[in-house]
Amino acid sequence: MKIQRYKHDSDTSYALGMALTIDLVQSKRDDVQAVFVSSKITDSSELRQLTTMCQKSGIPIEHNDKAFNILSPKGNIFVIGAFRKFSSSLATGNHVVLVNPQDAGNLGTIIRTAVGLNIPNIAIIRPAVDIFDPKVIRSSMGAVFRTNFQYFNDFNDYKKAFSNQNLYSFMLKASTPINEVSFDDPYSLIFGNEASGLSDSFAEWSKTVIIPQTTLVDSFSLPIAVSIAMFVAQRPFKS
Amino acid sequence: MKIQRYKHDSDTSYALGMALTIDLVQSKRDDVQAVFVSSKITDSSELRQLTTMCQKSGIPIEHNDKAFNILSPKGNIFVIGAFRKFSSSLATGNHVVLVNPQDAGNLGTIIRTAVGLNIPNIAIIRPAVDIFDPKVIRSSMGAVFRTNFQYFNDFNDYKKAFSNQNLYSFMLKASTPINEVSFDDPYSLIFGNEASGLSDSFAEWSKTVIIPQTTLVDSFSLPIAVSIAMFVAQRPFKS
Repeated sequence: MKIQRYKHDSDTSYALGMALTIDLVQSKRDDVQAVFVSSKITDSSELRQLTTMCQKSGIPIEHNDKAFNILSPKGNIFVIGAFRKFSSSLATGNHVVLVNPQDAGNLGTIIRTAVGLNIPNIAIIRPAVDIFDPKVIRSSMGAVFRTNFQYFNDFNDYKKAFSNQNLYSFMLKASTPINEVSFDDPYSLIFGNEASGLSDSFAEWSKTVIIPQTTLVDSFSLPIAVSIAMFVAQRPFKS
Repeated sequence: MKIQRYKHDSDTSYALGMALTIDLVQSKRDDVQAVFVSSKITDSSELRQLTTMCQKSGIPIEHNDKAFNILSPKGNIFVIGAFRKFSSSLATGNHVVLVNPQDAGNLGTIIRTAVGLNIPNIAIIRPAVDIFDPKVIRSSMGAVFRTNFQYFNDFNDYKKAFSNQNLYSFMLKASTPINEVSFDDPYSLIFGNEASGLSDSFAEWSKTVIIPQTTLVDSFSLPIAVSIAMFVAQRPFKS
């Protein structure tokens, strides 16, 4: 297959690294197009495991140093899994809604935490970072292969598609501290983007919630705020 | 002053960026050695504010493009504050203890959240990332200027220095889920490093705590785990 730098409009994305590629082959076997192995790799039990898995599933596994020059110029990666971008849609239940998230590392971290806290339904309102960006895949530690997600062109489209949800908007101007909120199923935890947060209009159609903080910081980082909110909403923990 | 790439053994570190440098001058005026401004900067109210602050405090403010080539080769930074590394020590009260943290971005994020949640006392057990690394300063969003911190050569040194603390070790092998723990003041929330967590020996001298999670992820990232733990331990929120 032809290897090229990842682009948003291409049909292929990449899992960079051994653990992530093993996870990919285990989770999304039918979507894996090829596995590339660097000539610099040393033998290991993981490599033998991966090779066996690929052979059993009919996935081509090949030495291809060009792939590493293109996809991982830093040179600290020795295995790459190429896969067909898969489609996904939200399930009913509890959701996290990210309005215009911009940072790939943040999105990956949020997905990892959401899957760990058993809220594997991520709605993303455009414009937004591409969930198939290899940086998202990598920072999710593979959790992106085990979450439901769906993009919407604006928040109204989301609200129409899931009109049953109880909406909770997290904003600094909110009226209710998180410890006084009861999160009723099915809930949607809504967060604005890294720089600007949610616009005031969210207060008109949802309950607003604040995570109390000192005045010594401007705010929490987006993944931290989302994680604290998910943890509180999910208590007692249901796995 | 002579400008050189940041080194762990140098006496000077750097705040990279306008907001961070303003914060530095406001928080640590006596330690600021100079402020450098790129010739590419455009006039702004922040620049005028910074200039006034520097003039009032007798801090040299100078155009110096060489500083940016050395300290910010990516070129997206237009102001740098150089400061003398300051000393700090833990106050009595509640602590976060990080055993061998390695990642600069993680440490900065943890400091930002700790200051926001009013636990501004970070013990760091060596070997560990350098808190004065400009990446830590930057990812803390300046919160490092408003926290107490102290390095220890090993955990026993910390325990001897603060023998009054109630110790809570966060580990996957722990016996008690976090929602069943009552955190008694003064408490220490203890976390291992990003790759390996805490060694089993911590179970011998502390209560062990786990943040419940699904089996669909290996673990939470270090800043996420620390943040959830701090939030729960601090409830009800005391600012």
